[in-house]
Amino acid sequence: MTDETASGLTHLRADGSAHMVDVTDKAVTRRTASAQAVLVTREDVVARIADGTLPKGEALGTARIAGIMAAKQTSALIPLCHPLPLTKLAVDFEPAGDRVRVVATATTNGVTGVEMEALTAASIAALTLYDMIKAVDHEAVITDVCVLAKSGGKRGEWSRA
Amino acid sequence: MTDETASGLTHLRADGSAHMVDVTDKAVTRRTASAQAVLVTREDVVARIADGTLPKGEALGTARIAGIMAAKQTSALIPLCHPLPLTKLAVDFEPAGDRVRVVATATTNGVTGVEMEALTAASIAALTLYDMIKAVDHEAVITDVCVLAKSGGKRGEWSRA
Amino acid sequence: MTDETASGLTHLRADGSAHMVDVTDKAVTRRTASAQAVLVTREDVVARIADGTLPKGEALGTARIAGIMAAKQTSALIPLCHPLPLTKLAVDFEPAGDRVRVVATATTNGVTGVEMEALTAASIAALTLYDMIKAVDHEAVITDVCVLAKSGGKRGEWSRA
Amino acid sequence: MTDETASGLTHLRADGSAHMVDVTDKAVTRRTASAQAVLVTREDVVARIADGTLPKGEALGTARIAGIMAAKQTSALIPLCHPLPLTKLAVDFEPAGDRVRVVATATTNGVTGVEMEALTAASIAALTLYDMIKAVDHEAVITDVCVLAKSGGKRGEWSRA
Amino acid sequence: MTDETASGLTHLRADGSAHMVDVTDKAVTRRTASAQAVLVTREDVVARIADGTLPKGEALGTARIAGIMAAKQTSALIPLCHPLPLTKLAVDFEPAGDRVRVVATATTNGVTGVEMEALTAASIAALTLYDMIKAVDHEAVITDVCVLAKSGGKRGEWSRA
Amino acid sequence: MTDETASGLTHLRADGSAHMVDVTDKAVTRRTASAQAVLVTREDVVARIADGTLPKGEALGTARIAGIMAAKQTSALIPLCHPLPLTKLAVDFEPAGDRVRVVATATTNGVTGVEMEALTAASIAALTLYDMIKAVDHEAVITDVCVLAKSGGKRGEWSRA
Repeated sequence: MTDETASGLTHLRADGSAHMVDVTDKAVTRRTASAQAVLVTREDVVARIADGTLPKGEALGTARIAGIMAAKQTSALIPLCHPLPLTKLAVDFEPAGDRVRVVATATTNGVTGVEMEALTAASIAALTLYDMIKAVDHEAVITDVCVLAKSGGKRGEWSRA
Repeated sequence: MTDETASGLTHLRADGSAHMVDVTDKAVTRRTASAQAVLVTREDVVARIADGTLPKGEALGTARIAGIMAAKQTSALIPLCHPLPLTKLAVDFEPAGDRVRVVATATTNGVTGVEMEALTAASIAALTLYDMIKAVDHEAVITDVCVLAKSGGKRGEWSRA
Repeated sequence: MTDETASGLTHLRADGSAHMVDVTDKAVTRRTASAQAVLVTREDVVARIADGTLPKGEALGTARIAGIMAAKQTSALIPLCHPLPLTKLAVDFEPAGDRVRVVATATTNGVTGVEMEALTAASIAALTLYDMIKAVDHEAVITDVCVLAKSGGKRGEWSRA
Repeated sequence: MTDETASGLTHLRADGSAHMVDVTDKAVTRRTASAQAVLVTREDVVARIADGTLPKGEALGTARIAGIMAAKQTSALIPLCHPLPLTKLAVDFEPAGDRVRVVATATTNGVTGVEMEALTAASIAALTLYDMIKAVDHEAVITDVCVLAKSGGKRGEWSRA
Repeated sequence: MTDETASGLTHLRADGSAHMVDVTDKAVTRRTASAQAVLVTREDVVARIADGTLPKGEALGTARIAGIMAAKQTSALIPLCHPLPLTKLAVDFEPAGDRVRVVATATTNGVTGVEMEALTAASIAALTLYDMIKAVDHEAVITDVCVLAKSGGKRGEWSRA
Repeated sequence: MTDETASGLTHLRADGSAHMVDVTDKAVTRRTASAQAVLVTREDVVARIADGTLPKGEALGTARIAGIMAAKQTSALIPLCHPLPLTKLAVDFEPAGDRVRVVATATTNGVTGVEMEALTAASIAALTLYDMIKAVDHEAVITDVCVLAKSGGKRGEWSRA
């Protein structure tokens, strides 16, 4: 139960217990990440999202704010995430056919990446859309929640192929 | 910008603005819901989740607690969700092949359903798993986030076919 | 420092210390409250709020969600407020001339009134509007924050004259 | 990984995993609990707490509010605690010699006991006192954190002997 | 729905959607702000605030802590506010006649100003005062909520005339 | 009610009111702290904590996550604590005889110490253990909550004798 990491390659503790890994000596760099979540519903529901006639009211604007606010709570939601000061966050929607793609982009000057912030924003925005449409389609599914691209830190640029 | 609902069938406001719909006169009934999220990664990563050798430590126990705690924050995360007193919550994991299925079940005695609570628990638990494995597989995807079944309220029992 | 109330008329403790007063034996009744806050700025700024050309983007929808979400945090913000389950919440805006009036209405089935929830919603919505316009008018002022009407509880109906 | 309890006596799940136990069918009763925490410091520090000459300012009033507000966050802090609507909360201080005893009392009409709320209030109030005095005594210790008495629920009245 | 700003002068996005504007490349400077809120009630109520005989107990100390704690939640309350590390916060009260003026001052070393933190502190402190007095004056009004002065950032010093 | 500190040695304000002291000009240094809390129960209960047969399920993993998450909420719980970005946090358990010692270690690059974060983590982890065992031992006590060691800042290294 000592506090050392088991090797230089990983942050594993001797007893395998969960912990917030040590990032004290990592360099502060500009880091960005984008992530998506896709709400799959029906075409008529996507139309109602677009024209604002859902029972609970305007869906996209509500989901956008939900995603932005959730991103700022990432380290309070994901137990081992380090708190970091977001310097930019945007949530966009691409409605097409029977689905709405949610894309969140996050930036920080920090010592850890911001992919969890982008993923949390996209996920909560998509859950909020589901909450707005569930009275008309409770069978809708959220799928393809993933990181799209990230930059900064020692691994540099990365984009999903 | 008056506060009336546009019809008996929906809660739509005259100006289409977002609002927390009126559930004041709905009956308190026992309501349950279950929901899932599926983390798709690689077989070797699922093995490391199972044997507890991930860099950040024990993943399933951490994700379970994250999901349970997030469920209790549902009305703080999803803008138009009503607060409700959860009377039971569990998060389970079914690892198989290259994926881990997360299933969350929620119960309340309340005036609104608990599907958003179950979905939030499953989603945040899955995001936590991603956070634990991203050092070894940042390409993992969360998919098939959906309600599995619900009971209570005026619609009664429902299960995904 | 005993825990008794000093009299039947008030909840004052013997040492005058702050406390969350005892509402255990109060009846659960339907309670509503409405409250307002007024943002005073310039006519051109109100026009930009209306046509959506502010630097930070769409202001009214953002402020509405901020107010709704803040209302649900009332007992976490106001130290001696009792937690209560909001069953309805709406935030509306009345732009006119050089100002925007924010009106929030809240309902619960509970043992205490919901005026603090309505006031918190109106105040945070107005502060959010200020945040959206401060790049173009940092001299704007929020004024006339007050309860407009309330019903329920032993005092029954009340409206500001 | 099924969801049944292992026996009528306990809430243990088959796989021993943590979960928020099912209280859906428990009766709503009036429940109270009191708990304490004792800050052990030096006599001169207790004097400064009393006369308000600590570097950070007035300590007892600050710690009281911290305790009351923390009690309302109990189910957000303690993973398996059920949310419940506190109907009364008070935090009192008994300075004597080299120590300050913190006593918190909580009440609810609910399906679970309020001892965690009372313990959380007492603990956070004591930690706040420590924060206020640590510039003059960082060796202070918090001790004897425990439930003093509780009532309500199927076990009825209980007091620490 | 692209992510570019429409011009160098503003942060407006092409679709006018709300977003947390990009401050990644702004310089970290010392920034201060002060803001006020004024509670207008009756002279006898101000007297009771001062002598501590209100039903809920000591009002000024309670409101001060509420304001300080709310300031730290600013970026969780105001959707498009960036999180920033407050390095100082104080809330003061100036009772006079039938009113109490609340003044909050905030400081940070950061990339954005702290006026929203000061405004949030003053507003929540004033709402807390209202909560303490509403049993004796529910007609009280909060007015003149505004920024008094700010320094730091590219605009330098500013004071309300 | 001016905002000056009364002397160079303390942060006391002229009116003795509570405030978040000014740390704007303090140097950012690496700071660490460790703290403990000790849960005193019975030997058979410690055995059940170890073998995972408590009614609510796995206790140590649950308490560890609770402690880590609470540490990140320290400045939201302790009114006058400054927010700071934790760069490492671990919570360990040492079960022995009739008790479990909880040790939390925290690190930051910041302008204030992290002892409150370590104390909060240890306290909430211990309270969580109590919550897990209270069905089998509601008389358990948490004791010896204190800072064990700290480093960084102008006082440098310190360890409890």
